[in-house]
Amino acid sequence: MRAVVKTAAQPGVEIREVPVPTCGPGELLLRVLRAGVCGTDLHIYSWDPWSQGRIRPPVTMGHEFVGEVIERGAGVTEFGLGDRVSCESHIVCNHCVACRTGKAHVCENTKILGVDVNGGFAEYVAVPAVNAWRAPQNVPLEVAGVMEPLGNAVHTAFAGELSACTIAVTGCGPIGLFAIGVARAAGASCVIASDVSPYRLELARTMKADAVIDVSRETFTERVKEVTQGRGLDGVLEMSGNPTAVRDGLAALRNGGRLSFLGLPKEPFALDWNQLVIFKGITIHGIIGRRMYQTWYQMDNLLRSGRLDIRPAITHVMPMEKIDDAIGLLRDGRAGKVVLVPWGEKT
Amino acid sequence: MRAVVKTAAQPGVEIREVPVPTCGPGELLLRVLRAGVCGTDLHIYSWDPWSQGRIRPPVTMGHEFVGEVIERGAGVTEFGLGDRVSCESHIVCNHCVACRTGKAHVCENTKILGVDVNGGFAEYVAVPAVNAWRAPQNVPLEVAGVMEPLGNAVHTAFAGELSACTIAVTGCGPIGLFAIGVARAAGASCVIASDVSPYRLELARTMKADAVIDVSRETFTERVKEVTQGRGLDGVLEMSGNPTAVRDGLAALRNGGRLSFLGLPKEPFALDWNQLVIFKGITIHGIIGRRMYQTWYQMDNLLRSGRLDIRPAITHVMPMEKIDDAIGLLRDGRAGKVVLVPWGEKT
Amino acid sequence: MRAVVKTAAQPGVEIREVPVPTCGPGELLLRVLRAGVCGTDLHIYSWDPWSQGRIRPPVTMGHEFVGEVIERGAGVTEFGLGDRVSCESHIVCNHCVACRTGKAHVCENTKILGVDVNGGFAEYVAVPAVNAWRAPQNVPLEVAGVMEPLGNAVHTAFAGELSACTIAVTGCGPIGLFAIGVARAAGASCVIASDVSPYRLELARTMKADAVIDVSRETFTERVKEVTQGRGLDGVLEMSGNPTAVRDGLAALRNGGRLSFLGLPKEPFALDWNQLVIFKGITIHGIIGRRMYQTWYQMDNLLRSGRLDIRPAITHVMPMEKIDDAIGLLRDGRAGKVVLVPWGEKT
Amino acid sequence: MRAVVKTAAQPGVEIREVPVPTCGPGELLLRVLRAGVCGTDLHIYSWDPWSQGRIRPPVTMGHEFVGEVIERGAGVTEFGLGDRVSCESHIVCNHCVACRTGKAHVCENTKILGVDVNGGFAEYVAVPAVNAWRAPQNVPLEVAGVMEPLGNAVHTAFAGELSACTIAVTGCGPIGLFAIGVARAAGASCVIASDVSPYRLELARTMKADAVIDVSRETFTERVKEVTQGRGLDGVLEMSGNPTAVRDGLAALRNGGRLSFLGLPKEPFALDWNQLVIFKGITIHGIIGRRMYQTWYQMDNLLRSGRLDIRPAITHVMPMEKIDDAIGLLRDGRAGKVVLVPWGEKT
Repeated sequence: MRAVVKTAAQPGVEIREVPVPTCGPGELLLRVLRAGVCGTDLHIYSWDPWSQGRIRPPVTMGHEFVGEVIERGAGVTEFGLGDRVSCESHIVCNHCVACRTGKAHVCENTKILGVDVNGGFAEYVAVPAVNAWRAPQNVPLEVAGVMEPLGNAVHTAFAGELSACTIAVTGCGPIGLFAIGVARAAGASCVIASDVSPYRLELARTMKADAVIDVSRETFTERVKEVTQGRGLDGVLEMSGNPTAVRDGLAALRNGGRLSFLGLPKEPFALDWNQLVIFKGITIHGIIGRRMYQTWYQMDNLLRSGRLDIRPAITHVMPMEKIDDAIGLLRDGRAGKVVLVPWGEKT
Repeated sequence: MRAVVKTAAQPGVEIREVPVPTCGPGELLLRVLRAGVCGTDLHIYSWDPWSQGRIRPPVTMGHEFVGEVIERGAGVTEFGLGDRVSCESHIVCNHCVACRTGKAHVCENTKILGVDVNGGFAEYVAVPAVNAWRAPQNVPLEVAGVMEPLGNAVHTAFAGELSACTIAVTGCGPIGLFAIGVARAAGASCVIASDVSPYRLELARTMKADAVIDVSRETFTERVKEVTQGRGLDGVLEMSGNPTAVRDGLAALRNGGRLSFLGLPKEPFALDWNQLVIFKGITIHGIIGRRMYQTWYQMDNLLRSGRLDIRPAITHVMPMEKIDDAIGLLRDGRAGKVVLVPWGEKT
Repeated sequence: MRAVVKTAAQPGVEIREVPVPTCGPGELLLRVLRAGVCGTDLHIYSWDPWSQGRIRPPVTMGHEFVGEVIERGAGVTEFGLGDRVSCESHIVCNHCVACRTGKAHVCENTKILGVDVNGGFAEYVAVPAVNAWRAPQNVPLEVAGVMEPLGNAVHTAFAGELSACTIAVTGCGPIGLFAIGVARAAGASCVIASDVSPYRLELARTMKADAVIDVSRETFTERVKEVTQGRGLDGVLEMSGNPTAVRDGLAALRNGGRLSFLGLPKEPFALDWNQLVIFKGITIHGIIGRRMYQTWYQMDNLLRSGRLDIRPAITHVMPMEKIDDAIGLLRDGRAGKVVLVPWGEKT
Repeated sequence: MRAVVKTAAQPGVEIREVPVPTCGPGELLLRVLRAGVCGTDLHIYSWDPWSQGRIRPPVTMGHEFVGEVIERGAGVTEFGLGDRVSCESHIVCNHCVACRTGKAHVCENTKILGVDVNGGFAEYVAVPAVNAWRAPQNVPLEVAGVMEPLGNAVHTAFAGELSACTIAVTGCGPIGLFAIGVARAAGASCVIASDVSPYRLELARTMKADAVIDVSRETFTERVKEVTQGRGLDGVLEMSGNPTAVRDGLAALRNGGRLSFLGLPKEPFALDWNQLVIFKGITIHGIIGRRMYQTWYQMDNLLRSGRLDIRPAITHVMPMEKIDDAIGLLRDGRAGKVVLVPWGEKT
């Protein structure tokens, strides 16, 4: 089969012929229908320091995808041939304290599909059946293909109070855009989005943010004050990893509010802890992955209900063959979420 | 001024001329603009056993209302003349354990406007300024007039998980109808309403319940199973006080779900605790009043956002003079929420 | 091997020679060292209505035990031969909503060791390795043998606020006695125990209850008022299933308190919901089993720290051969926890 | 009367004759019996940058004290003459969002006794009656005099899970020492204390820390690994404001743990957010003041029960006259908590 493979410890990827994966006990073999491209894929492609420390080539990339079940390994009974399944990308150990106390998303021994083991940028992929999630039937394939990052948005949003709250989403990359939709569908009464890119802010508007702030031209804290009539934010969903966004987000929170922190900073940065965190009684949540599998149930409910529609955030659907172009779009900030269509699949 | 007064220890009320209340320190004097009629008013009118034990005539009735500030008592600075304010009806002691630990809604020394002290079925009413809430400007007067019972619905809905949940509202009286709107606006992904009255079920539909169940003709648990594709309910907002509704609600909950119990049963009733509560790991919340004042902030946010519209549940707006007719409508189940207009107010 | 087997659909048990269990994939074979006798065993022995509906003879009884690993099934790596392990008795499906959202204790497809499948009243028992828990080394065998019911007490105590709280334990059977110790070790500032049996109340004292109430002679609510100087209880751990204990417990709670309900009532019973639950803003938790495996970590920490010592509640350690005597002691209320020693084990 | 007054915008204080405060409506006039010296007092004494921005001389210092009620202002009924009361030092507005939603400890308009208004380093002090707390009768005066900072410790400890948890207290100044006692009394199963001062570490031992780490000679994360047998910490109570302590605390937490942050850093400092917070799913709480008045009830219960004894942390009781010596002791790190005795009071 064809696959997008990180073949060497250097920038770039190769499209290669590789063997179709075997389907071990407890696994499903999927024909991949759609796959999303993530910022992490950009890091691996660019061979940045994080990738150099983590990736062991060759590995087939891709941790966001939906596929059709074409084979079931021994012992698998929950899925049938032909089922369309999306996948949790974290393969966890089930033995560590985190796994045994309902926090498998921070399992100490996590392996990630498309990072540590072969992933879904390919015609076929094998996944543990416990990681598979039957895709809601009312959503189009490109949405089913990006439930993994959508789950990041759900996890971040649901980490604190949401209903009837004023929530800011700082950073309007794909997960930020998803988070706008999630926060609205999940009951936030006002969703404010910020970014520096007019392109992304326009996407934020199409996701129905109640207000957008272009922080290249406007002062975040001032605009929040206006929009909230002085009350401040109840919560910040931090999706940028940008130090200024974090500091501004904290400053704009009402006393007692929360900042849920998913965006990965490029390097350590400082806070004025006294003014921004301690005197205000703020709670900061470090967020990674998805609650396994509470987040998936929540996401499933939101999608099935029709109250959440993330299609405006999916700006490109293109052949997997064009992975270099897809990476280029992301690198240049000319895309929301980019979805790939494997060889031979209909669009 | 004219007022609807419970004058004697017997059924009925009288419309009487009484003195305009004086405005003491820390109080506001309001010109009443609209007032809601509640099931409690029906009990007082009918002089049921509860009323006989609680009410000390003469007392001006009415605990749901909106008014315009026409006088401010000594020390009041938060409100100005002309402000339109809705009111929390619980006057609390601020000294008991509940009051001192953020649970003033279960203050041991609560006095209720229109029950224990003179209320708002009158041309004027005096209220503690701390109980006043500036009404959102985007809602019509009849909505501002019923924020108190709307707050009951918000309190019940927010007592457990709501976002992305499947929620049933059992009992479609006014608070149940409000709860349908609240649950939707606050992010429930599916709201199921049940009642025995076709009239009320039709109102539930206009409040946009995702499904309605006529329990006089359908089996609640079966229908829930269908609607939820076997998953069961995440939560029940119990608004009827009906033993069968409570038992059915518990039976239809998924394991680990919650039933938040606001409807007042007419008399003690039994549960099969093992099957309905213990083996299922259910949580039951007794709910009364509104969180002071968290519920009001939440309600305010929902109303201001425009995501919550309770107007379909307000079926009648009529002169306060016609209190007997209003009570009759409620008694006969021919109304959702009934709102009264005091003498001399424009409609 | 020898085992205590429920051989027929009638009262009583038989001691029988049965084959040593085989150790399947993912399982451990244990040589049983100690096993606790539970009220459930009494029900099965007596062949009460619940047993008649649930038990399919022949089945080896016993769901509380500690054993030594003598064989490991395929794929088991977490345990070594010779390890002493206690066991979670609930074998869960890992596929239902409850299992997938951190609530496996209310798995819809639970099978219980010694109830639905062969248990530990035997020389050997086979258990899923995921259900095994390495016993803390500082506790004696009879304590390690009853970690399962101790976990019930921990689960009930930890279902709500505990630290710096005034907690009542209603019902001083073995789990109630354990709960006294757990509540104290886990930070309750005052633990009040109630029962009707002078024998059990004396055990409650040895478990260091701060106050004990003999409800056959004293009025529970009055005594609580005295002990708490009028503040009332923060929480009730209900271990009796007795309707009066539940009603009194609710009545003695401060407004906003919680009752965590583990004791199984013999039949449905009624509450005055208005006075006992709704007007007081009470939360009731149905409790079953143990949080898997959060409760085990908590219990392990309490035992290892030495802050929890349940030995005073273990009143009898006797040969498994004398199962009829053990059942008799429980039936007559002449014992706290009874622990059995299998054939050939040293005491 | 005599009082310790910050008289000028420069280092030092003066002991002065000033008028006895008048007792306004809703206030209590107290004869001061004991008063604690706090790090904040050291800042004000030294006239550090924070003090220069906040303090408006002249002001009587002292925000930790116990006194006897000698006069009651108009409207005060909860206290009687002769009552011994400790005091919450935050005078809050009751009108802001925080105050109205159970978070008065982060009131936007807080005034602090002894900082913004005259405090308790004097023979007499006037305080709002709502801020007064009847001291438990079983504790000595020097303990009643430092309930305010003890409340900081309780608030920090209770900000996350505590019962059956392994908790580190980083920084063994007075509040850190109190926190050791609080964590133990409130049910932590293992309490680890760290500092650089042998003197303070010895005090930590007398407060019954299960382990102490001298971070000037030992590696915090390594020692925690040993003590916890590799499991890591469930929670950190950060009492030092030291960047290394914060980073080490985060590093030593198990995934999913919490750091509750009370110690005030001297200046902004950086974190490796990815490794220390996000990838680990950590929660950080900014902590200030005391929950009003939940923390006081909890503290009261712990003290009354006798399970919490903070006397070993109170190393000096000395005449208020010797304020300069007291400040010197604190500055030189030669004291735990220092308590002052006003002129004319018996020791």
